[in-house]
Amino acid sequence: MPQVSDKPTRSFASDNNAGVHPEVLDAIARANQGHVIAYGDDPYTRSAIAKFEEHFGAGIDVFFTFNGTGANVLGLQALNRPYHAVLCSDYAHIYSDECGAPEKHTGCKLIPLPHQDGKITLDSVRHAYHGIGDQHHVQARVISITQSTEMGTVYRPEEVQALAQFAHEHEMFLHMDGARIANAAASLGQTLRQATRDLGVDVLSFGGTKNGIMGGEAVVFFNRQVSPDFLYLRKQGMQLASKMRFIAAQFEALLTNDLWRRSAEHANRMARVLEAEVRKIPQVKVAWKVEANGVFAQIPRHAIAKIKKHYFFYPWIEEECIVRWMCSFDTTEEDVKAFVKVVAETVEG
Amino acid sequence: MPQVSDKPTRSFASDNNAGVHPEVLDAIARANQGHVIAYGDDPYTRSAIAKFEEHFGAGIDVFFTFNGTGANVLGLQALNRPYHAVLCSDYAHIYSDECGAPEKHTGCKLIPLPHQDGKITLDSVRHAYHGIGDQHHVQARVISITQSTEMGTVYRPEEVQALAQFAHEHEMFLHMDGARIANAAASLGQTLRQATRDLGVDVLSFGGTKNGIMGGEAVVFFNRQVSPDFLYLRKQGMQLASKMRFIAAQFEALLTNDLWRRSAEHANRMARVLEAEVRKIPQVKVAWKVEANGVFAQIPRHAIAKIKKHYFFYPWIEEECIVRWMCSFDTTEEDVKAFVKVVAETVEG
Amino acid sequence: MPQVSDKPTRSFASDNNAGVHPEVLDAIARANQGHVIAYGDDPYTRSAIAKFEEHFGAGIDVFFTFNGTGANVLGLQALNRPYHAVLCSDYAHIYSDECGAPEKHTGCKLIPLPHQDGKITLDSVRHAYHGIGDQHHVQARVISITQSTEMGTVYRPEEVQALAQFAHEHEMFLHMDGARIANAAASLGQTLRQATRDLGVDVLSFGGTKNGIMGGEAVVFFNRQVSPDFLYLRKQGMQLASKMRFIAAQFEALLTNDLWRRSAEHANRMARVLEAEVRKIPQVKVAWKVEANGVFAQIPRHAIAKIKKHYFFYPWIEEECIVRWMCSFDTTEEDVKAFVKVVAETVEG
Amino acid sequence: MPQVSDKPTRSFASDNNAGVHPEVLDAIARANQGHVIAYGDDPYTRSAIAKFEEHFGAGIDVFFTFNGTGANVLGLQALNRPYHAVLCSDYAHIYSDECGAPEKHTGCKLIPLPHQDGKITLDSVRHAYHGIGDQHHVQARVISITQSTEMGTVYRPEEVQALAQFAHEHEMFLHMDGARIANAAASLGQTLRQATRDLGVDVLSFGGTKNGIMGGEAVVFFNRQVSPDFLYLRKQGMQLASKMRFIAAQFEALLTNDLWRRSAEHANRMARVLEAEVRKIPQVKVAWKVEANGVFAQIPRHAIAKIKKHYFFYPWIEEECIVRWMCSFDTTEEDVKAFVKVVAETVEG
Repeated sequence: MPQVSDKPTRSFASDNNAGVHPEVLDAIARANQGHVIAYGDDPYTRSAIAKFEEHFGAGIDVFFTFNGTGANVLGLQALNRPYHAVLCSDYAHIYSDECGAPEKHTGCKLIPLPHQDGKITLDSVRHAYHGIGDQHHVQARVISITQSTEMGTVYRPEEVQALAQFAHEHEMFLHMDGARIANAAASLGQTLRQATRDLGVDVLSFGGTKNGIMGGEAVVFFNRQVSPDFLYLRKQGMQLASKMRFIAAQFEALLTNDLWRRSAEHANRMARVLEAEVRKIPQVKVAWKVEANGVFAQIPRHAIAKIKKHYFFYPWIEEECIVRWMCSFDTTEEDVKAFVKVVAETVEG
Repeated sequence: MPQVSDKPTRSFASDNNAGVHPEVLDAIARANQGHVIAYGDDPYTRSAIAKFEEHFGAGIDVFFTFNGTGANVLGLQALNRPYHAVLCSDYAHIYSDECGAPEKHTGCKLIPLPHQDGKITLDSVRHAYHGIGDQHHVQARVISITQSTEMGTVYRPEEVQALAQFAHEHEMFLHMDGARIANAAASLGQTLRQATRDLGVDVLSFGGTKNGIMGGEAVVFFNRQVSPDFLYLRKQGMQLASKMRFIAAQFEALLTNDLWRRSAEHANRMARVLEAEVRKIPQVKVAWKVEANGVFAQIPRHAIAKIKKHYFFYPWIEEECIVRWMCSFDTTEEDVKAFVKVVAETVEG
Repeated sequence: MPQVSDKPTRSFASDNNAGVHPEVLDAIARANQGHVIAYGDDPYTRSAIAKFEEHFGAGIDVFFTFNGTGANVLGLQALNRPYHAVLCSDYAHIYSDECGAPEKHTGCKLIPLPHQDGKITLDSVRHAYHGIGDQHHVQARVISITQSTEMGTVYRPEEVQALAQFAHEHEMFLHMDGARIANAAASLGQTLRQATRDLGVDVLSFGGTKNGIMGGEAVVFFNRQVSPDFLYLRKQGMQLASKMRFIAAQFEALLTNDLWRRSAEHANRMARVLEAEVRKIPQVKVAWKVEANGVFAQIPRHAIAKIKKHYFFYPWIEEECIVRWMCSFDTTEEDVKAFVKVVAETVEG
Repeated sequence: MPQVSDKPTRSFASDNNAGVHPEVLDAIARANQGHVIAYGDDPYTRSAIAKFEEHFGAGIDVFFTFNGTGANVLGLQALNRPYHAVLCSDYAHIYSDECGAPEKHTGCKLIPLPHQDGKITLDSVRHAYHGIGDQHHVQARVISITQSTEMGTVYRPEEVQALAQFAHEHEMFLHMDGARIANAAASLGQTLRQATRDLGVDVLSFGGTKNGIMGGEAVVFFNRQVSPDFLYLRKQGMQLASKMRFIAAQFEALLTNDLWRRSAEHANRMARVLEAEVRKIPQVKVAWKVEANGVFAQIPRHAIAKIKKHYFFYPWIEEECIVRWMCSFDTTEEDVKAFVKVVAETVEG
């Protein structure tokens, strides 16, 4: 086993730099008894899916994948044929941060829309919806939104609803990249169902990894007309786990005793604490509303490298010196304060 | 958590029906401290790769993936452009059991060769190697073998060497699907390096899942000319883990104190015990040499469903009533005896 | 303009070595007046499609493509999603001679079946139809046959019907690669409709190029449930001609005054003449029934290169010294006699 | 044969609404003698390629395809692996008008850059060139420009050179969509070589269809390091013509006695005449410089449908009422005057 570095052990780089919540690790260990059939035909998987039905209601289809890329790409593939197009924010994770996986795997074009605080608007969708019926144009088929967004903001329920309505009125689907749907639902004070299915979402990538599990994502179909062949899409898409029970057990834990909400609320609260603290530093400007578990801040260019010596993090919009600081289920107020101290000292320098 | 069934908890259906080896689970737990950078830029991943270098020698490239499908498909993609072809057994896992993932993702044709006891021969490769330079034909580029094979046999070192030599003399590569390379090396009494790199293998899918880890596979490049862009192939191929440390830690455990060999030797030994026991039953005919951890047996048709009531397992060649029984790191002699007892009673019936 | 060689100007290498029938060339010239809208929205295209409806009946969809590869691949794509499989002869053009285009473009696996005189049998289809509902297996979705076959034989109507019936009973489709459907229909004394639609074919690649047009193929959908989005598949598949009228005019000519049948009957008759002549040569053995416009003959190995000095042609099964000689719309009895003379003199040598 | 409509027979909708230049049709007819080997191994193809070498110099590779989509997509595929990205104008034909063919076939992302009068600038390329070496990002590999542009403007030689230099300094390639390269070279008073190879272009789609041939495009590689396997890419990409001689003969004609330049200069001149005439109409505003064979004009919204009753044409930027009017090799001054008369009468209405 390696020696871990002596830098602060909890950074603000990403919620996927955190480890595994103890309740999740415990569930994994408890699932490790005897043999069960592989590839999902096991009691652990059935039990975890039943948990999803508790939260989202009956009449859904749930499939586990390894990661968010897999969940997003395969969820989109279920909705599309290759000449279709996906409308999404030009800052959408699927557009910018998956190394072209959606295009490669589905063959579809992703059409980047301008965003407002990370959210696409009904107007921008309307503007991009054209060329329908013209054989030279890709055919708009999916609106994909990220909830909470890549800017740490959260779509309001009525915003999601309006996009869903537009989609359904135009023979399109609404896809939600819910890598941080827990943070969004917690922020809105909604149940998981209220934050997704009830607003008209057709397919949800339900994120686990960034909310404290070891690894795994679920594709949740509220619209079952598009899911019957998803078993094959998943296998061919290289996302079928053989020892599925260990992914299932993690989701079971996440959905038990509202661990998902406890973790998300905690991370969100830490972000608000962080926001409050950095707002006290004149050289730091908070870029967007802090509505989930991330704070995006504009800081002096000279400070970026210096802070990174102590805490690794990512630039978000480099030319504007906007950086991203994320909180996790395990972030503590002490972590925040230690970090803010370093920031304050550095930006002044 | 679900109630597991009251059937025998260790079956002979597959080595991926087993759980996680305690040393591996322990390693996962120990890796769960603090934050580390995601996506592989962490000390656990570096340490695990160093372990690979201990076993395989320096000058290699190692990339972790989620599963065997991912390792095989992306390993092949690194060797191929879409007009290339892969020569493999018509019983190869990549040909028959990945729902067309290699074709879908690489665009390449897989050309099925007849097999002898699960192995392709130099002659069959020579016969399939044609149409080179003809624009109408796919261009043979890769020979892919599975070690140990899908029939439980093991290629002899000189057989692998001969295939590698043919490949390299014809500007081709040798790819090894090593989902059970540990069982093969253990069976041959070789080190991992002797069983792969030293024989001329260019790219290896190094299997972990079937040898007692929770989930993960490694693509090991002995030929580094084809690996420089594998980082992108993996990400775009949806196989990049964010919390990579937990896959790395599993491989670290597997390669520490020869856990890989201890587990593989045990499983192999159990298969030999199983073979010896079933050979005592006149109605059971062992189909191929038992050289790794599987016993393939021809049994009376009427018995198949009856045994399955007690122990789930897979048919292998249905029309010939050949079935597959696999042993795992955790199979015990008692398990074998209990199983054989059921078999014996059933086939007589 | 180049000087053409002084070898015999009409060879027996392939029906696509022939040029353009004068009636077709004339139609092209007549279509060259003024401007018309591109991409198929023009009177020539509408008129040609009406001709198809005359021959095949109303209620069909017809799309022109550039070539047979395009027609076959896109026709299959209309029937498949990437996890589906196509069952075809291991000598099928789509399997062996399109450089993997079907796999690359559709993502699907093509499953090679053994053939009898170039035809797949219902038994071989039944044997290959398995793994349905198993997520690890590609899902058989299409039976594809070539009419006339790659061995110059012709499926009997009842053989096509039986394959169509099996397909439709198993939620599959019957695809016909009709690169030489004209030769087959002429051979059977059937109309185009009797030879295709009436037998249960769902999608037909209607070949023009090998029957005397300059270049072009038509995808004809008798099953319109799979064609509504074919406009997009064709454009995205790079097979949409801008000056479509010039392809349309060729098909109009081919379907006018039964030019298709006149040309096909002539080529078939020349093949029978050729067969009769070569049967007189003891060293030449006709390999399969001559039912369309090709003669496949086993000849002494030493003769192959020698004949090729005078007449270029293709080996068909190299290890058995079986070669292919094709007749075209423009082959003359004198051509046949001159060729047979060279063959006779050479094989004796 | 259909009755063509009684609308004016030469429209201004597109240069591909025109027919075939008589010299090209004549060349096709002359190529129709006897048999020649198919798929490009014929004297006509060799002769046409020699013509390309006359114009572009020795040391190039030339491949004919059916159409511009094929030439562009396959040219890009020769330069890219699927994780690469292509930087191009957001109005580029490859980005907007090929129904997603580039993404589907190559797997690559196309990154839209803002344009200035149809041209991308070095600054916009610099801005989009980022994320290099980051596995989450597609890797910029190709700059693709259209010459003349989709706005009827022409890149200046030094502009092309600067983009080529940036590309080559950053291990990228410069691809030119030359659907109207003839119009650009004629406009600049350059030879074909001066307008392409000498400026640093790596791969050119050399357009024929819009300059008066029946159908065909050529992919011309000035950088031969990327072309060795293009034969396979073309065949697998469904763009290999069997009766290749008839495409070759068209290009031979186009490159003989500078037909390419005569036709392009004429079309360009007609566009300037059209421009001069419409500038006399106060309600018509010419949107961009008229540098090739197209005039883009902003006209009153009410007039669009009315003019279309007489002359079909395409809107270009609908919300700004900018429309496109194209001239062809066969446009006459009388055509222009008749058209302008209709425009003038209509916009006043």
